[in-house]
Amino acid sequence: MDNKGFDLIEVRAGIEAENGRYALLVRELLEREGAFLINLMASPGAGKTSVLCRVIDALKGRFSVGVMEADMDADVDARTVREHGADVVQLHTGTSCHMDAKMTLEGLGALKRPLPEVIVLENVGNLVCPAEFDVGADMRLMILSVPEGDDKPLKYPLMFTVSDWMLINKIDTAAIFDFDFERCERNVRTLNPDIGIFPVSAKTGEGFAGFTERLAERIEETLRKRRGETR
Amino acid sequence: MDNKGFDLIEVRAGIEAENGRYALLVRELLEREGAFLINLMASPGAGKTSVLCRVIDALKGRFSVGVMEADMDADVDARTVREHGADVVQLHTGTSCHMDAKMTLEGLGALKRPLPEVIVLENVGNLVCPAEFDVGADMRLMILSVPEGDDKPLKYPLMFTVSDWMLINKIDTAAIFDFDFERCERNVRTLNPDIGIFPVSAKTGEGFAGFTERLAERIEETLRKRRGETR
Repeated sequence: MDNKGFDLIEVRAGIEAENGRYALLVRELLEREGAFLINLMASPGAGKTSVLCRVIDALKGRFSVGVMEADMDADVDARTVREHGADVVQLHTGTSCHMDAKMTLEGLGALKRPLPEVIVLENVGNLVCPAEFDVGADMRLMILSVPEGDDKPLKYPLMFTVSDWMLINKIDTAAIFDFDFERCERNVRTLNPDIGIFPVSAKTGEGFAGFTERLAERIEETLRKRRGETR
Repeated sequence: MDNKGFDLIEVRAGIEAENGRYALLVRELLEREGAFLINLMASPGAGKTSVLCRVIDALKGRFSVGVMEADMDADVDARTVREHGADVVQLHTGTSCHMDAKMTLEGLGALKRPLPEVIVLENVGNLVCPAEFDVGADMRLMILSVPEGDDKPLKYPLMFTVSDWMLINKIDTAAIFDFDFERCERNVRTLNPDIGIFPVSAKTGEGFAGFTERLAERIEETLRKRRGETR
């Protein structure tokens, strides 16, 4: 074959450097505006939108909340989320299977000013590519759902490695799917010993009180620093 | 911002043209060797490996069967599949979230000769990126699992648009997840009127007899043409 091939490696390196510059701009904007950004990632159907609605309901008495809905095309999630009282921006990623920092910066630019104190980016449903892109968020929050299986950390290690916290959703179906929580946690902690793990059910609400309380504390702590209160 | 940005569009066009040339080489190889290639795609945890094991069991009395297992890292699926009696090649895609035609050609090169009559490429678990890459397969077979929800065709339209056949897996859990088969089918057929839809359960085996019979007929028909029997 005389075809020399296409240097995908260099292209990726270029994309990553570019992305890093935009991630820095996102972080500067969050610092300046006193906002906390969560990058919410999961496979299709793991329950991102249902989890998000419960998080909005739990936080909205305490913080102003905004949402950036990233989808390849539809806007059904944006409509659902708006009904829960969050300021929503819909981002269409087109053929792109993930959000990058530049798209995130554009999304932040489209939210009302002053920025909401808490902003959740609901990333494209994908357990692979979003893990590779730092969007400048304060927290990477991933969801693994019980029906996906307790072996997923072995197969998609990067997502479990880069996430700060992980929700195990749909725990109400654990018996049906023979989901082994200990095995799952062991697999995850091999990759990421410090990850926070919260078993929940967005359907029944189980586990959400504890999770959202911890989340609110973490947000409060960061925002206090951004307002210069502890300096 | 004085940064001119990175021309991602042209990069993609280059990748697609390159991919098309390799897809052609894959097709020529399949023609020459008399083999049928299935590109099996789904989200993480939709049941690709369990479905694959049932397909191998159903076809192995009739055809020689080979499998190319694409994973970012692990080799658990390859071991499972080997136990079902198929010739297996493990492909590690590294950071890549999908198989392309060049990687497929390399995988085919690693299988024993003569090539198995039926070769299944188990793609990386991802409902987004694998849909964009023609690997030169005779059939694109996708799986949507019931826990993912009947609204997924709206959110990840490309995968449903490019697939020839679609399995709806885990139908034994349809009641728990309020899965509406009619709504799902309506959403899919808007994108792809001619798609073949087969509801199955890889756990209970329901629906597999009909599906694998249709699959065997389709394979037989193509292989007969490749052997020149109908010309």
